Amino acid sequence: MLKPLVSIVMGSDSDLDIMKGAADVLEELGIAYEAVIISAHRTPEDARDYSKGAETRGVKVIIAGAGGAAHLPGVIAAYTLLPVIGVPIKTPTLKGVDSLYSIVQMPSGIPVGTMAIDGAKNAGIFAAEILSLGSSEIADKLSQYRSVMAGQVSEKSKRLVEKGFEEYKK
Amino acid sequence: MLKPLVSIVMGSDSDLDIMKGAADVLEELGIAYEAVIISAHRTPEDARDYSKGAETRGVKVIIAGAGGAAHLPGVIAAYTLLPVIGVPIKTPTLKGVDSLYSIVQMPSGIPVGTMAIDGAKNAGIFAAEILSLGSSEIADKLSQYRSVMAGQVSEKSKRLVEKGFEEYKK
Amino acid sequence: MLKPLVSIVMGSDSDLDIMKGAADVLEELGIAYEAVIISAHRTPEDARDYSKGAETRGVKVIIAGAGGAAHLPGVIAAYTLLPVIGVPIKTPTLKGVDSLYSIVQMPSGIPVGTMAIDGAKNAGIFAAEILSLGSSEIADKLSQYRSVMAGQVSEKSKRLVEKGFEEYKK
Amino acid sequence: MLKPLVSIVMGSDSDLDIMKGAADVLEELGIAYEAVIISAHRTPEDARDYSKGAETRGVKVIIAGAGGAAHLPGVIAAYTLLPVIGVPIKTPTLKGVDSLYSIVQMPSGIPVGTMAIDGAKNAGIFAAEILSLGSSEIADKLSQYRSVMAGQVSEKSKRLVEKGFEEYKK
Amino acid sequence: MLKPLVSIVMGSDSDLDIMKGAADVLEELGIAYEAVIISAHRTPEDARDYSKGAETRGVKVIIAGAGGAAHLPGVIAAYTLLPVIGVPIKTPTLKGVDSLYSIVQMPSGIPVGTMAIDGAKNAGIFAAEILSLGSSEIADKLSQYRSVMAGQVSEKSKRLVEKGFEEYKK
Amino acid sequence: MLKPLVSIVMGSDSDLDIMKGAADVLEELGIAYEAVIISAHRTPEDARDYSKGAETRGVKVIIAGAGGAAHLPGVIAAYTLLPVIGVPIKTPTLKGVDSLYSIVQMPSGIPVGTMAIDGAKNAGIFAAEILSLGSSEIADKLSQYRSVMAGQVSEKSKRLVEKGFEEYKK
Amino acid sequence: MLKPLVSIVMGSDSDLDIMKGAADVLEELGIAYEAVIISAHRTPEDARDYSKGAETRGVKVIIAGAGGAAHLPGVIAAYTLLPVIGVPIKTPTLKGVDSLYSIVQMPSGIPVGTMAIDGAKNAGIFAAEILSLGSSEIADKLSQYRSVMAGQVSEKSKRLVEKGFEEYKK
Amino acid sequence: MLKPLVSIVMGSDSDLDIMKGAADVLEELGIAYEAVIISAHRTPEDARDYSKGAETRGVKVIIAGAGGAAHLPGVIAAYTLLPVIGVPIKTPTLKGVDSLYSIVQMPSGIPVGTMAIDGAKNAGIFAAEILSLGSSEIADKLSQYRSVMAGQVSEKSKRLVEKGFEEYKK
Repeated sequence: MLKPLVSIVMGSDSDLDIMKGAADVLEELGIAYEAVIISAHRTPEDARDYSKGAETRGVKVIIAGAGGAAHLPGVIAAYTLLPVIGVPIKTPTLKGVDSLYSIVQMPSGIPVGTMAIDGAKNAGIFAAEILSLGSSEIADKLSQYRSVMAGQVSEKSKRLVEKGFEEYKK
Repeated sequence: MLKPLVSIVMGSDSDLDIMKGAADVLEELGIAYEAVIISAHRTPEDARDYSKGAETRGVKVIIAGAGGAAHLPGVIAAYTLLPVIGVPIKTPTLKGVDSLYSIVQMPSGIPVGTMAIDGAKNAGIFAAEILSLGSSEIADKLSQYRSVMAGQVSEKSKRLVEKGFEEYKK
Repeated sequence: MLKPLVSIVMGSDSDLDIMKGAADVLEELGIAYEAVIISAHRTPEDARDYSKGAETRGVKVIIAGAGGAAHLPGVIAAYTLLPVIGVPIKTPTLKGVDSLYSIVQMPSGIPVGTMAIDGAKNAGIFAAEILSLGSSEIADKLSQYRSVMAGQVSEKSKRLVEKGFEEYKK
Repeated sequence: MLKPLVSIVMGSDSDLDIMKGAADVLEELGIAYEAVIISAHRTPEDARDYSKGAETRGVKVIIAGAGGAAHLPGVIAAYTLLPVIGVPIKTPTLKGVDSLYSIVQMPSGIPVGTMAIDGAKNAGIFAAEILSLGSSEIADKLSQYRSVMAGQVSEKSKRLVEKGFEEYKK
Repeated sequence: MLKPLVSIVMGSDSDLDIMKGAADVLEELGIAYEAVIISAHRTPEDARDYSKGAETRGVKVIIAGAGGAAHLPGVIAAYTLLPVIGVPIKTPTLKGVDSLYSIVQMPSGIPVGTMAIDGAKNAGIFAAEILSLGSSEIADKLSQYRSVMAGQVSEKSKRLVEKGFEEYKK
Repeated sequence: MLKPLVSIVMGSDSDLDIMKGAADVLEELGIAYEAVIISAHRTPEDARDYSKGAETRGVKVIIAGAGGAAHLPGVIAAYTLLPVIGVPIKTPTLKGVDSLYSIVQMPSGIPVGTMAIDGAKNAGIFAAEILSLGSSEIADKLSQYRSVMAGQVSEKSKRLVEKGFEEYKK
Repeated sequence: MLKPLVSIVMGSDSDLDIMKGAADVLEELGIAYEAVIISAHRTPEDARDYSKGAETRGVKVIIAGAGGAAHLPGVIAAYTLLPVIGVPIKTPTLKGVDSLYSIVQMPSGIPVGTMAIDGAKNAGIFAAEILSLGSSEIADKLSQYRSVMAGQVSEKSKRLVEKGFEEYKK
Repeated sequence: MLKPLVSIVMGSDSDLDIMKGAADVLEELGIAYEAVIISAHRTPEDARDYSKGAETRGVKVIIAGAGGAAHLPGVIAAYTLLPVIGVPIKTPTLKGVDSLYSIVQMPSGIPVGTMAIDGAKNAGIFAAEILSLGSSEIADKLSQYRSVMAGQVSEKSKRLVEKGFEEYKK
C-alpha cells in the first residue's frame, strides 16, 4: 500500500458524498490519499494534531471540505505549511455562500486555495497539478485526463450537430 | 485590581477601534475585563491555550471580534465551555457580510452568540446581561444604563418636537 | 415539576419543528424550560407582557425564533434585561437571510445573541453555557455532552478510515 | 395650527437628514404633520403608546424610518390599524439591505408599505396619495406636483439636446 | 354588483396563485375588487390605458404583482395618482430578490408601497387599511379580522403549553 | 439548407434544455441557426477557432450560454467582432447569480449583451431584433410574434375577468 | 448633420457622466447619435412616444441607462422592435445590483441586452457591433479600435516588464 | 538573474497596486518571479500564447489577478497544467463579489485556487507553499516568515495588555 500524498479532511460525514469527488479523481490519476473526518469545532485537538503531523507522515497537499462557518480549512492551514485546498460545501439555508466566504476570505499570512462550492472534484485535480510539479508520472496522467475530457466535449458537440436539440437526448 | 470577568479578544490591532466599544461599556458598568490580540490563524497555539485557560483564571464570558474569514470566535468556542460572544468586523470589500456569515453560521454543538457587524458595544452589554444573572449589582447598573439610554431618546424627541427639522441641529 | 429556567418563544407554529431543537437539547441537559407561541406583530401586548414578566417568574434566558422580518427576539429584548438568544428561521423566499439580518443587526443598547439560521439546537446549548456559570451541575452535563459529540466524530472518522468512501454508508 | 394628518417617526436622530425628505414634501403639499423620535428597542413603551394613540389624535398615516434591524415600522403597525409606510435607512455596513429586509418582509396580517432605501421623500408622496382619496385639495396639489416634476425632466432633456454632453453642466 | 374599490393587476397568469391571497382577504373583508392580467412589457398600451382609467372608474387602490424585472407596479404608478401597492413575486432563479429590488427601489416622485415577497395577502390588508380611513365599516371589519388573528395565535400557544412539542401536531 | 445566421454555443450539454429556448424561437421566426457545444475551459482552442471563423462562415450573431464561472460568452467575444448575446445558466448552488456576474460584468472594450438568468428564449428574440435591422422579412415575423404574445395576455385577462380566481384554472 | 443611428436615453441627468461613455465611443467610431433625458416614471408618455417613433426617425439601436428600479430600458423595449441595450447605473445604496436585476431580468418576449454596471462605454461598442453587420465602414473602425486597445495593453505590459512594480508609475 | 518560478499576470494596470502584494512577498522569500499585463479579452491571443509557453520557460506556478467578469485566471488555467492561483480584485460597484464568483466558480476539470478579494499577498504565500514541496530552502524561509508574523501578533498583544485601549495607538 502506497503512502498517501494527499489528505482529504471533512468536518462531518454529511460532506461525504461531495468529498468523494476528490477521492474519485485522485484514484483515477493513481494518487494515493487518506480520508478522515475531523471537526474544527467538535474535535479541535484532533484537527490540530492531524494538521501538525501531516507533513511528517509524507502528506504533500491537504484538501479540506466544510460547510457553514466552515473553519476547517483555515484551522488546518494555521497548523501546517502544506498547501491547503478548501472546498466550500453547499448549505441548506445560504446555499454555500456562507461556506465560500468563510473559506476564501482568509487573512494575510495564511492562504487557503479555494474551489467552487461543492467543487471537490476540482480540488483533486488541483492537488494533482501541484504534485505534477514533482512527478512527471502524475503530470502525464493529468495531461491524458484533460485530453479525455476535451474529447468528451467534442463528442457531445458532434452529437448535437448531427441530431439537433430534439433528438440529442434520445 | 479586580480579576477580569470578561475577556475581549481580537484577531488584529486593526479591530481595536471597534472592539474598544465593548471595553467602554464594561468600564461604564464597572465590570473588570482583560483585552488581548490573538490570531486564530497566525498564533493558533495561543488561541488554544488562551481559550482553555480562561475559565480557570476566572473569566466568565469571552467577547471575540474578527473580520473576513473571522474564525476567531468559533475557534475559541471550540476550546471552552464559557459563552462566547462574536463581533463580526466590517471588511473593506464585503463590508462584513463575510465576517457575519463566518461567525454566525456555526455548526450544531458549538454556538457563538453573534452581534451586529461592528456591534462591539452590544457585546459588552450582552456580557453584562449574562453576568447580571449572578450579580444584582451588575443588574442594577445595567437597568440604570437602560434608563439613561431611554431618557436620551426622549430628550431628542422633545427637541425635535420643539425645534423642528430645520432648527434641530443648531 | 421544575420552574423553567429557559423560555422558548416562537412567532408561529410553523417554526415549531425547528425550535424543537432547542427543547430537545435542554431536556437532554436536564434544564427545565417553557415554550410559547407569541407574535410580535399579531399579539404585541402578549409579547410585551410575557417579556416583562419573565424575570419575575424565574426565567434566566429567553430563546426566541422568528422568520422574515423576525422582530420577535428584538421586541422581547426591548422589554427585559435577561439575555435573549435569537434563532433566525429559514424563509421560503430569502432562505433566512432576511431573518438573520432582522435579528442580528440590533441597534446599540439592546443586543440579541444570534445563532445560525435554523440553529435552534445551538440556542439551547448557548443557554446551557450561560446557566453553567451559576450551576456546576449543568456545567458537568454540558461538558459530558461535548465529549459524547467529540466521540461521535471520532467514531465516524474511524469508520471512514476502515471502510473507505464506497463502504461507509452500507 | 393644523392637526397633523401624518406622523413621521424615526428611531434615532441620525435618521433626521433622510426623514426630512418626507417632511419637506408634506410641507410643499400643505399637509400638516408631526415628527417624533421613538426607538422600538430603547423606548418600547413609548412606541406602543404613541402607536395606540395616533388614530385618536387624528393621524391618518404613519411614516416610520429605521435602519439595521429596523423594527420600528413593524412594531408601530402591530399597534394600529392606520397604514404604516416604512423607510429603510442606509446603514454603514450592509448599506440598508438589512433595513429593507427587516421592514418589507413583514408576516401575514400586519403589512408595512415599504419605500426605497432612504426613500423618505417618496414616503411623503405616498402618504399624500392615500390622503388624496379623501381630499380633492390634496389631490390637486399632488397632481400639480407631478406636472412640475415632469416639466423639470423635459427641461433637462431640452438642455441636453441643445448643449450636448460637454456643455450641459456649464 | 358592487363597483370595485380595489384593482388587482398581475403580469402573468403564473402569478395567479399568489395574487389570489389579496383577493381572498378582500372578499373576507367585504371589499369589492376587480382582477386583470396586464403585462407592462407585452401589453404596454393596455397597462397605460388601464392605469389612466382606473380612478375614473372608481378604483381607489391598485395592487400590482410581478416577478423578475417586475416593472408593472412602477409603470402603473407612473400613470395614476392612486396609491399603488406592489407585490414582488418569487422567481425560480433569484427567489424574488430581483422582483423586490425592481419594485421597491422606485425613484423620487413615484412611490410604490411594497409588500414582502409573495406577500399578496398583506397587500389586501394594506388596501383595507387605506380604505378604512374613509369607511368605518371596513375599519370595523379590519379590526375584527385582527382580533381573530390574535386569537388564533393565543389558541396555538395554549395548545403548545398544554401538549408540548411532541403532541402538538397530533 | 440555409446558411446559419445565428450560432448557439453552450458550454456543456447540461445547458441543452435551457438553450433550446433560443433554438425554438429562431425556428418559429424562420431564422437559420447552428448549435454547438464548446467549453471555454475544456476545449479552449475550439472556442478560439470557432469564434474566429464564425463571421467568415456567415454567422451574424452568436448566442452563448454558460453557468458558474461562465466565461464562454466573454471568451467568444474576445475573438470576434460579431455581437455576442450571453445567457447566464442557473446553477445548483448560487442559482445563477454567479453566471450572471461572470457574463455581464465584462471589462471596457469587449461587451456581451446579457439576458436574464435562463433567458435563452429572449436571446433568440434579441438576435432576431438585431437581424431585423437588415431584413424586413424577419422584422415582419418578429412584429407578428409580438402581436400573438400580446393577444395571449389579453385572452388570459379576459378569462380571469370572466371566470375569477377559483374557476380560472379549471 | 448626420441622421442619428443610435439613441442614448437616460432617466435623469445624474446619469449623464456615466452615459457620456457611450457618446464618446460612438463619436470615436464616427457613428451619429442623439441623447435625451426621459423618465419612465416621471414622463411616461414621453418614454412611450419616443420609443414608438424611434424606428421611423431612422434610429437603429437604443441605449438606455437607468439606476434603482431602472425600468427605462424595459419600458422602451416594450414599445419598439429595435434592439435596446441597457446600462445599469450604480446607486448609492445597493451599488447598482438593484439596477442590474431590474434591467437584466426581463420576462420572456421583451429582451434588453444588458451591460455591466456603469458599462456605458461597452454599450456604445455593442451598438457599433450591431451596426457593423450592415456597414463595413463601421466594422473597419471597430476593428481598428480593438487593435489600438490591444496595443495599449501590450505597451503597458512591456513597461511593467522593463520597469518593475516600483518604477511603473513614475 | 534567476529564471522566474512564479508568474504574476494581471488583466490591467489598475490591478498593479494590489498585485504588488504578491511580488513583495515573493521577493521577501527569495523566489524569482516575472510580472506581465495580459487581458483575457483585449489580448486573448497573448493570454493563450503566454499560458501555453509558461511551463516550458520554467514557470511552476501562475498567479492571476482580475476584476469584474475576471476571466483571466480561468482562461490561463484552460491552456496550462500548472497550478493557477486566482486573485479576485475589488470592483467599484460590486466590491469584488463579481470577481470572486467569476474566478472561484470554475467548472469541473479546470480548477483555479482562489484567494480572498484583493488577497494578492496570500497568493504569493500560497505559491511559496507549493514550491516548498520541492525546495527545502523555500520551506525554511516560509517557516521563518510565519514565525515573524506570529511574533508580531504577540508583540501587539503585549502592547495592548500593557497600555490598554487608550494608550495603544500613542
